[in-house]
Amino acid sequence: MTSLPNRAESPGSTVRIAVDAMGTDSHPGYEVRAAMQALDLRDMHITLVGDEKKIRAYLAKGLADEKRLSILHADEVVEMHDPPAASVRRKKNSSMNVAVRLLKDGKVDAVLSAGNTGAMVCSTSLNLGLLPGVERPGIGVPIPTRRGWSLLIDVGSNIDVKPIHLLQYAVMGAEYWKLINNVPNPAIGLLNVGEEESKGTELLRGVHALLDRSHLNFTGNLDGKDLYHGNCDVVVCDGFTGNVALKVSESLASTFGYFLKRELGRTPLRRLGALLAAGAFKDIKEQTDYAEKGGAPLLGVNGTVMICHGGSPVKAVRNAIAGVHDLVSNRLNEKIAKVITEEMRFLSEG
Amino acid sequence: MTSLPNRAESPGSTVRIAVDAMGTDSHPGYEVRAAMQALDLRDMHITLVGDEKKIRAYLAKGLADEKRLSILHADEVVEMHDPPAASVRRKKNSSMNVAVRLLKDGKVDAVLSAGNTGAMVCSTSLNLGLLPGVERPGIGVPIPTRRGWSLLIDVGSNIDVKPIHLLQYAVMGAEYWKLINNVPNPAIGLLNVGEEESKGTELLRGVHALLDRSHLNFTGNLDGKDLYHGNCDVVVCDGFTGNVALKVSESLASTFGYFLKRELGRTPLRRLGALLAAGAFKDIKEQTDYAEKGGAPLLGVNGTVMICHGGSPVKAVRNAIAGVHDLVSNRLNEKIAKVITEEMRFLSEG
Repeated sequence: MTSLPNRAESPGSTVRIAVDAMGTDSHPGYEVRAAMQALDLRDMHITLVGDEKKIRAYLAKGLADEKRLSILHADEVVEMHDPPAASVRRKKNSSMNVAVRLLKDGKVDAVLSAGNTGAMVCSTSLNLGLLPGVERPGIGVPIPTRRGWSLLIDVGSNIDVKPIHLLQYAVMGAEYWKLINNVPNPAIGLLNVGEEESKGTELLRGVHALLDRSHLNFTGNLDGKDLYHGNCDVVVCDGFTGNVALKVSESLASTFGYFLKRELGRTPLRRLGALLAAGAFKDIKEQTDYAEKGGAPLLGVNGTVMICHGGSPVKAVRNAIAGVHDLVSNRLNEKIAKVITEEMRFLSEG
Repeated sequence: MTSLPNRAESPGSTVRIAVDAMGTDSHPGYEVRAAMQALDLRDMHITLVGDEKKIRAYLAKGLADEKRLSILHADEVVEMHDPPAASVRRKKNSSMNVAVRLLKDGKVDAVLSAGNTGAMVCSTSLNLGLLPGVERPGIGVPIPTRRGWSLLIDVGSNIDVKPIHLLQYAVMGAEYWKLINNVPNPAIGLLNVGEEESKGTELLRGVHALLDRSHLNFTGNLDGKDLYHGNCDVVVCDGFTGNVALKVSESLASTFGYFLKRELGRTPLRRLGALLAAGAFKDIKEQTDYAEKGGAPLLGVNGTVMICHGGSPVKAVRNAIAGVHDLVSNRLNEKIAKVITEEMRFLSEG
């Protein structure tokens, strides 16, 4: 590991964030711009981890606050096709793993990466461990609905699940949602193939029973057909199902955009119509823009960890960095550890 | 069971179809209209099963060919909330179960229902049994993609799966796709959380290995993000995953429509734009209209069975009835039984 030549001493109250600068499809340019913009939003210190020469080239184009922004050189990059577990061992000097070890060593308070999600889950789980009482980490992703936003958790951190894992996703997702949206008692839904309690696999019936007994505001099974109606704040599922639901939605949304563009472009009249109605398309895009929401927290690891989509625009990374700051300053993980411990004790007594 | 007072004697070559007339949200009106329209499309005999008085009321409104259309009275209706397995035992005189037993007794060649899907799977599986060699039935649903249509199988017939079930879905889906689309060697994809062979659950790695060894045109894992790109003809998954993928897609599509309507209606200018571009929206609707494709075949049961969405419009039911005719006249089930037997022998020898 390289030393920290440019790292400013952070005062105790300043949140320190390590950003893997080599994660987005447009790295490190997007990460550099996002970091500079994020510094305007929050009082914090950012360490950009990655190819120092490339990072400096982008920094030179903007105004960088050297006291609040450092660079830590890392030789390697975890690629999207790298096997997650192996990448932790074989690419010790990758920007992702160096950034995660900064958190492990207490040199920063949080870490963010838009790189290989599986590798990030492995690296943080192995290096940081899990919060007391947590059995599996989960990735929560905000999804746009008719009534605002919901959190879908887990979307792929863990595909080999037990009922207790999904119960814990619900607890962690609820704490996260309370914190970022000021919702006192988030409504929890369990993604299933129907609303009736008896629906779904044995696993899901087990989760249903646990959620029913818990202190959570559990509203029952959520049929897939209602996911985007927004009746729940937090929607719980296993990582395989959540990953498929999220990616199939991405696929459908982009295909719908493709159809719209193709069909609206076919005649001059349609093109004129599209021009006059452009404000509507812009408004829909804004209302459903995940970039506004930033990244997806990896909840349950012993450290504040944010994951971004590899295709994130600068705005998404910027907002994710600001979001990470807020999770640290509001001590989300302390709250999660406390509530998980209480809930597990309560359920084991019942 | 009531007798068949109105049933015309069907000549050997005429395909005879029993239609559960009480399945759609607008039963039996939609079923009656669909049946009458379908008789214009194909040479066949249809038995409408359900409340005779209500059915006659709708028939009186249109021209019914009494020689080609019969009514079989059934007292009960399987409701959407009825538990599937129990409905087979407790509602023996329901339109669905009476229709299925017509097929069991050889009085018709196929059965169609837009009622409770789970109940239809149970009723047909229990009454008809499965095709030789088939271990689980699967529901295949056509989904619109950028490059035409794909078949997603299974979307909820069976949520407790083994690798061999998904292999069989691939075989059955391929035979169906060959028949209805004249595709000689359909491309098969396995819905997964990534493209690499190692991705997904143990179950999916098992399916991947089986598909790799089979005679099928297996193109590997299909990442959820590519589902609507249309690179595969047949997309295989377990019933839970397929049900979530399908319903989440329905939810997103309807929510997108909701957003469009809301935002396009906000100002006079946008409304004018929407009017000028109306042809584009109409074209997209037509290109992605599942009603064109009719219903979803329940493949693997020992009998030709078609399932429709409860919310189907008349056109969907009409096209589904015509589709059923074609499956019977082209002897789909004989082909499936033959290929399944060959494939199972081949895989057991390997």
